[in-house]
Amino acid sequence: MEFHEAVRSRQSIREFKPDPVAPEVLLRLLEAFRAAPSWANVQPWELILVQDPELRRRLQQTLSPGNPATKAVAEAPVLVAAVGIAGRSGWYKGESVTARGDAWMLFDLGIACEHLALAAAAEGLGTVHAGYFDFAKAGEILGVPAGRSVVELIPVGWPARLPRRVERKPLAELVSLDRHGNPFPLPAAPSGSGERPPSRDGGPLSAAR
Amino acid sequence: MEFHEAVRSRQSIREFKPDPVAPEVLLRLLEAFRAAPSWANVQPWELILVQDPELRRRLQQTLSPGNPATKAVAEAPVLVAAVGIAGRSGWYKGESVTARGDAWMLFDLGIACEHLALAAAAEGLGTVHAGYFDFAKAGEILGVPAGRSVVELIPVGWPARLPRRVERKPLAELVSLDRHGNPFPLPAAPSGSGERPPSRDGGPLSAAR
Repeated sequence: MEFHEAVRSRQSIREFKPDPVAPEVLLRLLEAFRAAPSWANVQPWELILVQDPELRRRLQQTLSPGNPATKAVAEAPVLVAAVGIAGRSGWYKGESVTARGDAWMLFDLGIACEHLALAAAAEGLGTVHAGYFDFAKAGEILGVPAGRSVVELIPVGWPARLPRRVERKPLAELVSLDRHGNPFPLPAAPSGSGERPPSRDGGPLSAAR
Repeated sequence: MEFHEAVRSRQSIREFKPDPVAPEVLLRLLEAFRAAPSWANVQPWELILVQDPELRRRLQQTLSPGNPATKAVAEAPVLVAAVGIAGRSGWYKGESVTARGDAWMLFDLGIACEHLALAAAAEGLGTVHAGYFDFAKAGEILGVPAGRSVVELIPVGWPARLPRRVERKPLAELVSLDRHGNPFPLPAAPSGSGERPPSRDGGPLSAAR
């Protein structure tokens, strides 16, 4: 699929058909994750593909109450747990070299998890970034050792239906020139970039993306 | 450009031709950033396009000594400063709802900045994620108000040359089944995913991606 079409077609999917994801398709998603850039190429990540139904059920229980991804965590054809490795991104010789500490680990995981999500969209697959869960408990369930933690759970599968698209704030609210708040002279915008900012889709439990 | 080709072609570029980036091309990059998903769609971000040479020179001075992106920050045809808005990603009613606090802001910025980087690659443009700088000073220079901070500086332009590609660890080291460290039965791998893990490219100052 063309790049921008993949970007446009990606949306959070939480209801999946039972159809499996073919191994060669899954492999393309994993390769897209693997190709992601990271701080000094430290690749502070690992993936756990969780197939065991009992582990899935236990992971479900680590989600925030009412999290709309709950069903998907148990029932999606594929569940990816993205694990972050602390002390790498933003670190040098055992010390954090910026004022952001291990938040750079999450920055890098964001990049790589979105590589996977966009690669899925390019296949017509749906995903959702689920980050609102007890990551310590999830790590226990999956045997994640010290120094590592589960950052995201990503259900993957064929969408049962396409939900209403979530809007974004317009470019005019997003972009400044030279100094914060100084308007940037935007070139003629294609349709869709000039609308008013949306009302928020979903509540805090939905993590609608 | 086809999605996977864009992913494969993206690499960190720090040397640029002086040729400008056409406004309609830049617009596609900004639209890709704008389309990014975020925690509950809070969109915790803004962009500042820094064109003023004096501001560019001052931003250069916030970089870590020897940062190989230093020249690009002053000289790339386009310099994007990605600003994060605290207290949104991972927050609800004024409280952080996970144990990761505002690290979720960086997760979301990672997603959106990579949307921009991949969109650039799809145009044949080069970018580099530069995160190793004094973000408080950078924020002062760009007039970024309290509650916001500069997360990344992203030089954008036409590559002067394509550097040697940076390798990634093989899938076999990346993916487990059900529990951390339990081998995942990978399907037959295409060329490029079975090689040995690379030596690290660049030192801690290079943030090679």
